[in-house]
Amino acid sequence: MRTVDTFVDARALGSGCVGLVPTMGYFHEGHISLVEAARRECDTVTVSLFVNPLQFAPTEDLESYPRDLDRDAEMVEVAGTDVLFAPQLSEMYPDEPLTTVSVASVTEGMEGGMRPGHFDGVATVVAKLFAGITPDRAYFGRKDAQQLVTVRRMTTDLSFPTAIIGAPIVREQDGLALSSRNIYLDPAEREAARSISRGILAVADAVLVGERSGEELERIAAEPVNDEPGINLDYATFVDQDTASPLAGLNRPAFLSVAARVGRTRLLDNVHIDRVDGGWVPDVGIRLDEPSILYREA
Amino acid sequence: MRTVDTFVDARALGSGCVGLVPTMGYFHEGHISLVEAARRECDTVTVSLFVNPLQFAPTEDLESYPRDLDRDAEMVEVAGTDVLFAPQLSEMYPDEPLTTVSVASVTEGMEGGMRPGHFDGVATVVAKLFAGITPDRAYFGRKDAQQLVTVRRMTTDLSFPTAIIGAPIVREQDGLALSSRNIYLDPAEREAARSISRGILAVADAVLVGERSGEELERIAAEPVNDEPGINLDYATFVDQDTASPLAGLNRPAFLSVAARVGRTRLLDNVHIDRVDGGWVPDVGIRLDEPSILYREA
Repeated sequence: MRTVDTFVDARALGSGCVGLVPTMGYFHEGHISLVEAARRECDTVTVSLFVNPLQFAPTEDLESYPRDLDRDAEMVEVAGTDVLFAPQLSEMYPDEPLTTVSVASVTEGMEGGMRPGHFDGVATVVAKLFAGITPDRAYFGRKDAQQLVTVRRMTTDLSFPTAIIGAPIVREQDGLALSSRNIYLDPAEREAARSISRGILAVADAVLVGERSGEELERIAAEPVNDEPGINLDYATFVDQDTASPLAGLNRPAFLSVAARVGRTRLLDNVHIDRVDGGWVPDVGIRLDEPSILYREA
Repeated sequence: MRTVDTFVDARALGSGCVGLVPTMGYFHEGHISLVEAARRECDTVTVSLFVNPLQFAPTEDLESYPRDLDRDAEMVEVAGTDVLFAPQLSEMYPDEPLTTVSVASVTEGMEGGMRPGHFDGVATVVAKLFAGITPDRAYFGRKDAQQLVTVRRMTTDLSFPTAIIGAPIVREQDGLALSSRNIYLDPAEREAARSISRGILAVADAVLVGERSGEELERIAAEPVNDEPGINLDYATFVDQDTASPLAGLNRPAFLSVAARVGRTRLLDNVHIDRVDGGWVPDVGIRLDEPSILYREA
């Protein structure tokens, strides 16, 4: 694996089909699953690692976001990465950036509503990575479901020749969706956070036994979070996979997304419901059979 | 020359160093000079031809903008084009475009002030052409000076690996800067329009004899237009070449830009003042020694 810090080097090291995994680092098994998917499908696997200030609001956790380049480099090398692109701020933004890439409509609700400017920051940095690295394929977790919708739409609208791959959520043994931010949780918060995935998994079960009402699925997702002290629900919303706009019922590919606050930590989870062979198949992701690296390290 | 209408084909036909000339068609010697520059410097010369609705306001001349693909194809083939990319609206915007590329600050004054949304449309379509065609070099006329600043900044901010080349203005024998919109002018309007280039050429002369005051250069540019009946000055503004922000004096590379209305036609002209070997050199462009093709055809 080569670690580089300029776009010129990152681009020069790509040959054949180039797969990009854009990240903010502090890797866990969710990131590793993206690297492994890229390794299976591409000639060159490039992981970018940049904690992008544009997608944090001034009140958010940019300063405290976990960073450990040596740890991260070792993890992605083992997983089969060819190129780790870890630019400094001065490579990404040599001048004050004046250019913003905005995606309307799909960014209006959910995280877009809670975090003004967040998706402008995401769309801008992803466009920049696509422009500067020219990947053939790019891998994102389904966990950030609205981000995936936003990136897909930006890619189509701007005619980037990059296939966007959404990979399943990876979960702890008890169901909690992996997130670098999980390391912020103390034991009591960690326990309260379980209520999110309980609701998500209950939605998947309800779909499998025939529930089709968006309102009812939202109620099922929200209930365990609302019943749990020490966690506050931001939203439980059922939307279209292509447009991220609310759906009254399951009549096209959809996802149900939940956001909640535990102490000062915001957590997201969702279940995508895909159309497979004429039926509805919930994607609840992958369950680890031991604690994730985030807990083995702690 | 191959004429294609999809990004996939346009990209596939590019080999070696690819030079892109983005246009809205209805070519004149200004466009041809861009194609010739690309021919000298690149392995593949690709001309894109698309009248981009995003950069026209509802009140502007999108519908009447001159279009003639057969005429245009012949002209750029003779000039050495390899690939003419002339997409339909359905290729450029298969879905309603939700993504906007905006460049702040450099788009605030001059045309940005007069044409709200215009530079969003320009930045978005140029980003799309760069993303979809991945050119190594791209050629723009210096005539659209603020557009050139905007495109340069967008390219840097988004890390496109594309060198931006600004080429000199091409002028009629009497000085009028070539523009596809010149065909809208009747003989009296054509005569009134000459006042713009008289002012621009007077600015160049003033710089050569030592004038350094932005205010005085603006006065020199405006005077012939203000003295001419049948033409209305929108602005005569002296700005920094990198930021398009007003300059009090000539202390860095600059341009003086004039916009005026003749009947229903808006016309632009400018002189770039470059730093060459420690001196200030005005670029007044190239003067044709016969009427341009726009008049030979008429």
